[in-house]
Amino acid sequence: MAMLSDPSRKYRPFPQVPLPDRQWPSRMITQPPRWLSTDLRDGNQAIVDPMDGVKKNRFFDLLVEIGVKEIEVGFPSAGQTEFDFIQGLVRSGKIPDDVIVQVLTQSREDLIRTSFASLEGARAAIVHLYNAVSPAWREIVFRMTPEEVREVAVKGAKVMRDEAGRRPDTDWHFQYSPETFSTAELDFSISVCEAVMDVLQPTPERPIILNLPATVEAATPNVYADQIEYFCRNLPNRESAVISLHTHNDRGTGVAAAELGLMAGADRIEGCLFGNGERTGNCCLVTVALNMYTQGIDPGLDFSDIDRIIETVEYCNQLPVHERHPYGGELVFTAFSGSHQDAIKKGFAAQEQRNDELWRVPYLPIDPADLGRSYEAVIRVNSQSGKGGFAWVLEQDQGLKLPKKLQADFSRHVQRLADELGRELNAADIWQVFREAYFVKVEKRRFRLVDFEETRAGDGDRIFTGTIEVDGQEQSVSGRGKGLISSVLATLKEAFGLELEVADYSEHALGTGTDARAAAYLECTLPDGRVVWGVGIDQDVATASVRAILSAANGASRSAA
Amino acid sequence: MAMLSDPSRKYRPFPQVPLPDRQWPSRMITQPPRWLSTDLRDGNQAIVDPMDGVKKNRFFDLLVEIGVKEIEVGFPSAGQTEFDFIQGLVRSGKIPDDVIVQVLTQSREDLIRTSFASLEGARAAIVHLYNAVSPAWREIVFRMTPEEVREVAVKGAKVMRDEAGRRPDTDWHFQYSPETFSTAELDFSISVCEAVMDVLQPTPERPIILNLPATVEAATPNVYADQIEYFCRNLPNRESAVISLHTHNDRGTGVAAAELGLMAGADRIEGCLFGNGERTGNCCLVTVALNMYTQGIDPGLDFSDIDRIIETVEYCNQLPVHERHPYGGELVFTAFSGSHQDAIKKGFAAQEQRNDELWRVPYLPIDPADLGRSYEAVIRVNSQSGKGGFAWVLEQDQGLKLPKKLQADFSRHVQRLADELGRELNAADIWQVFREAYFVKVEKRRFRLVDFEETRAGDGDRIFTGTIEVDGQEQSVSGRGKGLISSVLATLKEAFGLELEVADYSEHALGTGTDARAAAYLECTLPDGRVVWGVGIDQDVATASVRAILSAANGASRSAA
Repeated sequence: MAMLSDPSRKYRPFPQVPLPDRQWPSRMITQPPRWLSTDLRDGNQAIVDPMDGVKKNRFFDLLVEIGVKEIEVGFPSAGQTEFDFIQGLVRSGKIPDDVIVQVLTQSREDLIRTSFASLEGARAAIVHLYNAVSPAWREIVFRMTPEEVREVAVKGAKVMRDEAGRRPDTDWHFQYSPETFSTAELDFSISVCEAVMDVLQPTPERPIILNLPATVEAATPNVYADQIEYFCRNLPNRESAVISLHTHNDRGTGVAAAELGLMAGADRIEGCLFGNGERTGNCCLVTVALNMYTQGIDPGLDFSDIDRIIETVEYCNQLPVHERHPYGGELVFTAFSGSHQDAIKKGFAAQEQRNDELWRVPYLPIDPADLGRSYEAVIRVNSQSGKGGFAWVLEQDQGLKLPKKLQADFSRHVQRLADELGRELNAADIWQVFREAYFVKVEKRRFRLVDFEETRAGDGDRIFTGTIEVDGQEQSVSGRGKGLISSVLATLKEAFGLELEVADYSEHALGTGTDARAAAYLECTLPDGRVVWGVGIDQDVATASVRAILSAANGASRSAA
Repeated sequence: MAMLSDPSRKYRPFPQVPLPDRQWPSRMITQPPRWLSTDLRDGNQAIVDPMDGVKKNRFFDLLVEIGVKEIEVGFPSAGQTEFDFIQGLVRSGKIPDDVIVQVLTQSREDLIRTSFASLEGARAAIVHLYNAVSPAWREIVFRMTPEEVREVAVKGAKVMRDEAGRRPDTDWHFQYSPETFSTAELDFSISVCEAVMDVLQPTPERPIILNLPATVEAATPNVYADQIEYFCRNLPNRESAVISLHTHNDRGTGVAAAELGLMAGADRIEGCLFGNGERTGNCCLVTVALNMYTQGIDPGLDFSDIDRIIETVEYCNQLPVHERHPYGGELVFTAFSGSHQDAIKKGFAAQEQRNDELWRVPYLPIDPADLGRSYEAVIRVNSQSGKGGFAWVLEQDQGLKLPKKLQADFSRHVQRLADELGRELNAADIWQVFREAYFVKVEKRRFRLVDFEETRAGDGDRIFTGTIEVDGQEQSVSGRGKGLISSVLATLKEAFGLELEVADYSEHALGTGTDARAAAYLECTLPDGRVVWGVGIDQDVATASVRAILSAANGASRSAA
């Protein structure tokens, strides 16, 4: 492999923010922000096949259902399709009264006018103006001085003000993004925002939204938080601005940057469902919202049917939600490891016993049921799983509650099959292994109970008289003991020379009502000290016990062979 | 949609760490940590179909190639397959001298002995002991007092010490994880680690590795950093311990937690390539390492052929690397947006002109070439793209350097096709649109040059004499002007009544050497003020110009029609 070039010649560390008395690390998030979805804009412009009108409408409806109240619906000056969709949406009457749409525009007079035109007829709307302010953009892309860049913003703000004035039937709100904020000089960004505010004259009652994009994530997320706190502390007329975050995920810390940015004083978050957006994507709104939810804060967004949401998002974006995506991924509530499975099982059990609602299940930061997911999907079995996992599966699937020592015995069988197959075992696999291991409803077994009756002798002993199929031949057999089990054991010894001693026994009901059956578990010792387990299932509790003994007898015959 | 239940009844906010004088927010990462890959353990136990021996070996070889020096190879007591793979690896002689393998074991005497046995014959190895220490696990899973839980760790440490003593041919190192550290009482975790250190007697020269897992990510990443700093500051004999981080990604901030944890004093990071691992996965080693790389720090890991690495990882894990995964995702160096494409183009151009090596390209936090990726993949065109994108594609693909005003003219054509198709346009699409827009090598066109010659008149004028196919019929035509272009324009006016005036003209070489051709671009004005562009490509510079004029003539005929 060719070595990477020496990075110190090519890259520079991102400078620290001069904020030694930063306050955000001591703060906590205590309330949800205002949420803006930019799925239809930043998300849509970053997918291989942008959404058509049908998909855009479907996505819009989904966002409304989830409870998003601010939705960026596009970039009207980007093309006729975009313009027509926005104008169609506005005219459709499908925008609820408590939802406001937002459009993005570069700071050019014709584009701003087009953007206002696309919203003709809207009850209310946010027009979102941006221009890039950081040195790399000023110097490489625009070849402008800082003053010229600020003037671009001011000119755009004036056009916005005038266009809004000319169209008094819509309740206009203004948003300004000093684009590339994360890599710009903080004092310069503040001065541009101040100049824009001078034009638009926001008030605490009619604030401007100042959106501070980490257009490219360029540093650890604490640096972004420092930038936000610095901005909030130094912006004149702070109370007339809603501070909005727009993070990207180039360093894999877009969610963290948004969360720390909230702690640093921001009021609003822009992002996409499941982190769609340019390159590595935007901050994932699902993750940030459910992170709050698991801390006891109502995010105001509803993800209680997350699988349906994923289905729509995947359809519209033609991009998958990754198997490990927090909260949404297929595998994120799945435990393959035995010790994890065991702990989760105990957590569910403890949850049932307690009287409070508090969620406290090991390895599961959120109740899957809160997202509309079932518990059954939680535990899956592969060759790395221990006994907790398949025991859970058997209990969920068949109602069997295996004694702990039987779990250990059975684990050898499961392990062997998992190793052999080299793939995940499903519930049917496990049930099949179980039936073969303990001769439950399988063809191939030495002993099979045909029928029996149990009578009482004069001395109180019990007499077992039954028909047992042995290697395919029915035999009438009989034996006597203090109880049912001992009479069957005596029968086995007398008729077949099989000596079994019972070490442990348990039985439980399977299901309830008229369909209820019983499951009996029997731990037996052989004369040579070996242990065999027997399992019997029947509608009658006595028959289940007899079947369990024959199951153990089958096991003893196999281990002898 | 059913509403989410009220989270405040079910979930509690994670408590803050009492550390008002925390130092980490003022620190920066200045050197790489020790890296441990747990792909073959935490990663492998979390995939649907765990790796077989072939895949494990392939993954191990990949890790060695990347430069990982500490590799957790499995959980030897989990099953025979696992044990055999580890013992086989040790015996194979394929572990390089500077690489050390690590195995994980629960704190039970038989399991620890099995773990040591699996490493029989190793030159050196790390045995990694763990038990869960947090309240939920103590109370729900084990039903043990804190003292009993500490004693489990101490007992395990004693078995480790004794086993190591009995096997002096291997250079043993010890690692202890107070599992579920992130949700445990900090002082209790410290007391357990202290008790383990009392048994194992580490020194600054032979330190113990104390690994502090965010087994489940339960708070914002700054809280984990606080926990790490608190731990480092309060651990007695800190200099005899290597502090290791093991974060998970339940809240989508596993990478951030690892980075802030390093700033808080840790020395080592455990993780997986592309963030595999239980549930939402472990910290992604690729992301953390390349994050350092982009800050000028050599991570000591080599991802210079990232596509090959992805291929192997996807094959072994049977899990995809997501399209938006930082650094590795298919779309992360892709810009569909026109303004982004334009900025990137300018960044590359500026890069070429400058003399330093410093990377400074808008929207690209890292040079794709450093990861073995090409620039061509960077810019892709869909209906959201502006003129920067397709111009780039034409330049990369065909060598054409369109004048800016021609880009604007052409953008209408591209936009229309992108809107029509509703999908991404590839280079072939764009070239096709270009040829049709400017009648370059297409069948259907009014005028086609068959042949021509240029002679000089007595007065110095140039005389164009040529054969032009008009609507399928060849015609001999002629005209006179001050130069080549004006003589052809005169010909067109004379022969076909077509009046074109040249507003701008440029030409450049296409390629070099004997295969070099020329591309000519011509902006013409029609009598009614409309503008048409002509493009001509030919091996001869003069012929390219003539073709460009006929191309404009074709455009004029079309617009007239």
